[in-house]
Amino acid sequence: MPTEEHMRAAMQKYLDALNALDVVGALALFGQGSTVEDPVGSGVAPAIERLPEMFGQIPDGATFVLDTPIRTSHGNAAAMAFTTRVILDGEPIEVRAVDVMEFDDEGWITHMNAYTGPSDVIRGR
Amino acid sequence: MPTEEHMRAAMQKYLDALNALDVVGALALFGQGSTVEDPVGSGVAPAIERLPEMFGQIPDGATFVLDTPIRTSHGNAAAMAFTTRVILDGEPIEVRAVDVMEFDDEGWITHMNAYTGPSDVIRGR
Repeated sequence: MPTEEHMRAAMQKYLDALNALDVVGALALFGQGSTVEDPVGSGVAPAIERLPEMFGQIPDGATFVLDTPIRTSHGNAAAMAFTTRVILDGEPIEVRAVDVMEFDDEGWITHMNAYTGPSDVIRGR
Repeated sequence: MPTEEHMRAAMQKYLDALNALDVVGALALFGQGSTVEDPVGSGVAPAIERLPEMFGQIPDGATFVLDTPIRTSHGNAAAMAFTTRVILDGEPIEVRAVDVMEFDDEGWITHMNAYTGPSDVIRGR
């Protein structure tokens, strides 16, 4: 089972990769055959397909910041609440999310669920 | 599919039930046959068995407060990050968690995962 320290570090590296628009750095955390549902409700997709699509849609200058420390578990999963801030056509927008990652015994991410809905998009600030 | 408003309200009611030590109020949110893994890694148990056990272990005066607004999704699930604060034998303790709830079409909770690990327990403050 991965250690809590490993899971917390991997989640932080994923957040760092989002901030750096570094899709290769993000994919380096995911295992072979890993999957992503981001956002939950949109369907499960291979990480190797979905992550490049997602990262390609991030506007320049977007920031991704933890709202509260990353949580781990007594198993092979961890969760983090963060907020994305972007400015689109001059309008500031916040997008709130919780990402949950599952890991295999070797510490690779096997699945990520992103909990964020239409009402988690806050316009005007 | 439950609305985002419904899911957010149910999560808040669960938090209110924790603060009020109201296990019946909490169970009223869960559907027949629903399950809980709290904390993740401890094994899945029927809500009707695990919730009374959990609520029975909450010390008097414990508070449960959101760290950041509840997130929903584009599906039938939502997530919230919160912190439990208790004083045990004169020592203040914080326990950080993320709870993820899944709902059925009628709006009942079908499963709850609680992400909180040994290192999410912060002693001395």
